[in-house]
Amino acid sequence: MARAAVRAALALSLLVLTAPPRAAAQQAPSSAPPLVAPPRTGAGLIGFTPAAAATERHWEQMFLQQPNPASLRESLRTLTAQPHMAGTPADHATAEYVASVFRQAGLDTQVIAYSARLPYPRQVRIELVSPAPQTLPNYEEPIPGDEFSAMKDAAIGFNAYSPSGDVTAPVVYANYGLEDDYADLAKAGIDVKGKIVLVRYGRSYRGIKSELAAKAGAAGVLIYSDPNDDGYHAGDVYPNGPYRPATAIQRGSILNGNYPGAPLAPGQQPDAAEQAAWKAALPTVPTAPISYQAAAPILAALTGPAAPRGWQGGLPFTYHLGGNDHTRAHMRLEMDDQYRTIWDVIGTLRGSGSQEVILGNHRDGWTFGAVDPDSGAMVQLEIARALGRLHAAGWTPLRTIVLCSWDAEEFDLIGSTDWANQNLDALRAHAVAYINSDQGDFGPNFSADAVPSLGALIRSVAATVPNLTTHATTIYQDWLKNAQEHAPGGQAPPLTPPIGVLGGGSDFEPYLGHVGLASADVSFSGPYGVYHSLYDDFHYFSTESDPQFLYGAQATDMKGLIAMRLADAPLVPLDLPAYAQAITDAINGLRQAASAPPVATLDWTGTLAAAARLQTAADQFTERSADALAHAESNPARLAQFNAALAGFDQNFLLPQGLPGRPYFEHLIYAPEITRGYSAAVLPGVSERLQQKDWEGAQVQLRYLRQALERAANALDAVR
Amino acid sequence: MARAAVRAALALSLLVLTAPPRAAAQQAPSSAPPLVAPPRTGAGLIGFTPAAAATERHWEQMFLQQPNPASLRESLRTLTAQPHMAGTPADHATAEYVASVFRQAGLDTQVIAYSARLPYPRQVRIELVSPAPQTLPNYEEPIPGDEFSAMKDAAIGFNAYSPSGDVTAPVVYANYGLEDDYADLAKAGIDVKGKIVLVRYGRSYRGIKSELAAKAGAAGVLIYSDPNDDGYHAGDVYPNGPYRPATAIQRGSILNGNYPGAPLAPGQQPDAAEQAAWKAALPTVPTAPISYQAAAPILAALTGPAAPRGWQGGLPFTYHLGGNDHTRAHMRLEMDDQYRTIWDVIGTLRGSGSQEVILGNHRDGWTFGAVDPDSGAMVQLEIARALGRLHAAGWTPLRTIVLCSWDAEEFDLIGSTDWANQNLDALRAHAVAYINSDQGDFGPNFSADAVPSLGALIRSVAATVPNLTTHATTIYQDWLKNAQEHAPGGQAPPLTPPIGVLGGGSDFEPYLGHVGLASADVSFSGPYGVYHSLYDDFHYFSTESDPQFLYGAQATDMKGLIAMRLADAPLVPLDLPAYAQAITDAINGLRQAASAPPVATLDWTGTLAAAARLQTAADQFTERSADALAHAESNPARLAQFNAALAGFDQNFLLPQGLPGRPYFEHLIYAPEITRGYSAAVLPGVSERLQQKDWEGAQVQLRYLRQALERAANALDAVR
Repeated sequence: MARAAVRAALALSLLVLTAPPRAAAQQAPSSAPPLVAPPRTGAGLIGFTPAAAATERHWEQMFLQQPNPASLRESLRTLTAQPHMAGTPADHATAEYVASVFRQAGLDTQVIAYSARLPYPRQVRIELVSPAPQTLPNYEEPIPGDEFSAMKDAAIGFNAYSPSGDVTAPVVYANYGLEDDYADLAKAGIDVKGKIVLVRYGRSYRGIKSELAAKAGAAGVLIYSDPNDDGYHAGDVYPNGPYRPATAIQRGSILNGNYPGAPLAPGQQPDAAEQAAWKAALPTVPTAPISYQAAAPILAALTGPAAPRGWQGGLPFTYHLGGNDHTRAHMRLEMDDQYRTIWDVIGTLRGSGSQEVILGNHRDGWTFGAVDPDSGAMVQLEIARALGRLHAAGWTPLRTIVLCSWDAEEFDLIGSTDWANQNLDALRAHAVAYINSDQGDFGPNFSADAVPSLGALIRSVAATVPNLTTHATTIYQDWLKNAQEHAPGGQAPPLTPPIGVLGGGSDFEPYLGHVGLASADVSFSGPYGVYHSLYDDFHYFSTESDPQFLYGAQATDMKGLIAMRLADAPLVPLDLPAYAQAITDAINGLRQAASAPPVATLDWTGTLAAAARLQTAADQFTERSADALAHAESNPARLAQFNAALAGFDQNFLLPQGLPGRPYFEHLIYAPEITRGYSAAVLPGVSERLQQKDWEGAQVQLRYLRQALERAANALDAVR
Repeated sequence: MARAAVRAALALSLLVLTAPPRAAAQQAPSSAPPLVAPPRTGAGLIGFTPAAAATERHWEQMFLQQPNPASLRESLRTLTAQPHMAGTPADHATAEYVASVFRQAGLDTQVIAYSARLPYPRQVRIELVSPAPQTLPNYEEPIPGDEFSAMKDAAIGFNAYSPSGDVTAPVVYANYGLEDDYADLAKAGIDVKGKIVLVRYGRSYRGIKSELAAKAGAAGVLIYSDPNDDGYHAGDVYPNGPYRPATAIQRGSILNGNYPGAPLAPGQQPDAAEQAAWKAALPTVPTAPISYQAAAPILAALTGPAAPRGWQGGLPFTYHLGGNDHTRAHMRLEMDDQYRTIWDVIGTLRGSGSQEVILGNHRDGWTFGAVDPDSGAMVQLEIARALGRLHAAGWTPLRTIVLCSWDAEEFDLIGSTDWANQNLDALRAHAVAYINSDQGDFGPNFSADAVPSLGALIRSVAATVPNLTTHATTIYQDWLKNAQEHAPGGQAPPLTPPIGVLGGGSDFEPYLGHVGLASADVSFSGPYGVYHSLYDDFHYFSTESDPQFLYGAQATDMKGLIAMRLADAPLVPLDLPAYAQAITDAINGLRQAASAPPVATLDWTGTLAAAARLQTAADQFTERSADALAHAESNPARLAQFNAALAGFDQNFLLPQGLPGRPYFEHLIYAPEITRGYSAAVLPGVSERLQQKDWEGAQVQLRYLRQALERAANALDAVR
């Protein structure tokens, strides 16, 4: 591991290669006026004075020396020693391990226990009843050479929050189980009422597959992983490659995510009203995941019309739609539906000021969770160790850094939501940003989803961090090259690496949507076909994902420096003009898509005017903030006002009553899609009303949006 | 078989539904000036006077009563009683059967024997040598219920004209064996020199696969049928559906098609010079076809890099590129390379004038040939019977109709080429058109490839012929609907059904390319996955393709009426303005694609001016021809001059020395692609030189083209 040599070779280039990402971003075509450059005193470090930047560079260079592949490897090995589903003793052991590492690093450390509804499976029995009775496997086979895969204490294949049930019915194949698929089945004359629907994973969140099947009247749902999607037709399967082998099962929750529980002490249970609301949010149709080895006999036995060509998967026969008595299956599901204890671990490195930077990663896995989530969790431990060493060497951040190891993310983002709810006021008062990661850091491809105000910071850190695994000198270069090579057909390659829009499906949801905190989700990803299966273990990770633990080292660099810059910058390094521009673009995008009356005749002008006002306010605020930064020593109170406004910026977008149908989600600019797709809804209040053709509701949401934009502009204008 | 009832129900609509296809064609966007309408006196019948049209309609209505599903079924049953590869006794029996039907119909009938090089396989042995020795099957397994598939007298799987050879070498998987595929292999560091290349059928003519493998230095070629292309991932496999089952082998010739033999009497052999030229045209690398059952063990054993995602086929494992000693195969091919006798059958219904209409369909199959070619051959017999009955009832066509049953098409279009060469002068003097069919008439989808002058005739016949199998009233309606539903994404649906461009791969090649005869290839096709395999038999056809033989009846209607109108129209019904427009469009298309120098600086103006002149000449000729038709009774000699010019029109485009590299192909407007793709080269002289970046050669070809266009314009102008 010639890490020091690599570092040395890159040292010089590092000094010059802090790309000016904002300048490049301005070259992208836009109808909006050119942006005012964000404050970038201090040689490319956003929010720093030259003196502060020099100090920062010193500590960052020290940080970059810390990540150690052997240490990362040991962390992952320990975290993934056993299957550690949330609420199990093994899960508790990982909490204690994380706490011990945090403590050793010198962090104030708390293990916080909550009580949560965590249904475990008592029995999952899937059988083909006719034409030839056969019990189908619901557990992965051991893989020679992978000692972990022979352990028998992981949960069998199940979908959390499925109701218990006992169903025997004809099987219908419904492709990915999307709305269009049910429409096509109806056209083909196949009735799914009372049937067991067999759908494949992919193209939608599994909870939606269950929900749409229920809407169509299905009596049961089987969700399988087709080899054409992440199995042998995607590439070599484990142990010969990273893709899904025949018996691998994708476990996972099927909650719709719109009901966030309140934090409960262990043993405590919610009141009757809350219980009723909770029950209303539960899936209604027994649903279970199966492997392609289990799905094959069912699919092969289906008769009726051949499936449309686009529905054909990778099994070696023609798929049929079924729906008749020739092919019947039996599902027997028993879930225990109990309250169990989960454990968040919170490690705090106290800063000199009162603001806070939050970094979160969950720790619970469906089985061993090596990639998901512990490749991210191991990086979190490495960040803790590195920050601890810097602190021991004399560094104290301006802002407190809080490292959060969440539990029960897999079930329903429970640990992160509970802690957010419990600390809501403090977070709104002090936190400046929430940086999430999840499944995590296991490959060469850096990506970031974030609110637009965090884009410039992430790009500038990427231009600082050396690339340890390719010929590129920095993460930025590979990130951009990758984006350019994968530009959609017909589109010009991007000039800067793209920042994605935050959707749903991980622990940033409560921090962005409910706390109103500038949030990001960053990861290094690669080929990965054993998602949520038994094989997501240490042997898999250390042979298929990151054998040298260099992606983990790079990820430690990236996330550590993002945290340090957020914590150390005298002026909070958020780019508000970029946020304002993204909002204007989004409103214009919705309006232009709404070409026909009555959509087109909605009143967009007030909202667009408010967005323009916010743009002006953000530009002027940014100019003034540079001045406040330059005069920070003589007038620290003024800088603090700017920092408070920056930290609170997203809170202006919160609507106290929440979005229609999901009161917990208050953010008017970004939300998970209502279907809890993994993807994002932008301007969700307006866009969902438009999708529902609820023109009155859309007009109301346009008004809420206008008020939020005006609130934000007023808040910025008030700081002088 | 409620054929009479269907006819009755359609009778009324038939009288009104002769769509004006040309008018619709004119709505298509074009840079060319609006066309002069072709002569359409006689209520939609092109080239007829009102009086002649009334008579024609009478006889056509009688023709439409003739086709009989039971008779079609019996014809196919007899033709496909045994495997009848060209040159076998069973092939001779089919010739005698066709001759007997022709004679019974009252046609002058000749069985003409030729001697031809027809190599049969003595031995084809394909083995996997390592990692685990295994002999791979080269014969199809019998299918329960299909008595034909149990017959053992069809040839084993082989590619005709492969050299004999004995090769043991590592195997490389090369996708479809296209030029790009070899480039990708080179990029991946896989050397194919001395290796056995395993490629899949599809996307190119199999002879090209062998030739490109030879060019890359391969020692052997195995061509297999991947289940993703025409097997179980396309749809249900035989006997459950029409697609390719596991052991089905696609036999076929691998000649490049650029050397057309001279007609030889049985027992005769060509002279030494011709033998030498012939030998130079032969493939050089041992090549054999295999089934996916045989390919699977080889593909599964390949190691090395995983194949690119686009190379992955439908077998249930990840494909690898191989190329190393881990996976070695052995091919032993022994071909007898003998001269054998083949038999064309020519049936002639003498017309009252001296001109001729030629209809051809081959009769030889690789095995039973039920779809390919005998679904077309059975229709030819039904046409003979129907025309014979009309003749017996008093009808005599104006022009002689010649029905040709070709032999040895599968080997190298031998029977058709020999007869064309033997009758070259007579054909050039008397024939007005050649209407081909091949694999043939086995489904609902009508299509036609033709020179542009035949488009209006084919469309007008399609608007006359009732549809017996769908709700559409005529063939025209379904044809148009099908084209509209399958319009390429982003393109406006067509307003008239499209006429394709004649490419290569069937018996029209010598008639268009060497005789210079207006040609068309028409068929009714459908799902078909047993191409060139043992399973292309009567049981397959009568269960999967056309169980009621109604498509065969429709096809008899279509082709019979095309022949009748060509034979009966007082004025030869060829649309020369459409041809001239297509030529102008093609020249402009080539010039616009040639945007960069030195291509753009070639002199296109003379050729474009000649095309414009031809357009004017064709328009004016067409106007004069309407006048000649109107005054035919008083001046029959004038009409005869117009008819001679129409019949000879394509001969103006012949270049006596032929196209570069293939002297037999003289037609300057259309040719098979030089690679003998099944697809077409338009303006082949110019376009191939441009592809070769031979700018001088392209200029020479532009000059030849200009001269041909001027020749054609002069020929039309000379008829007043």
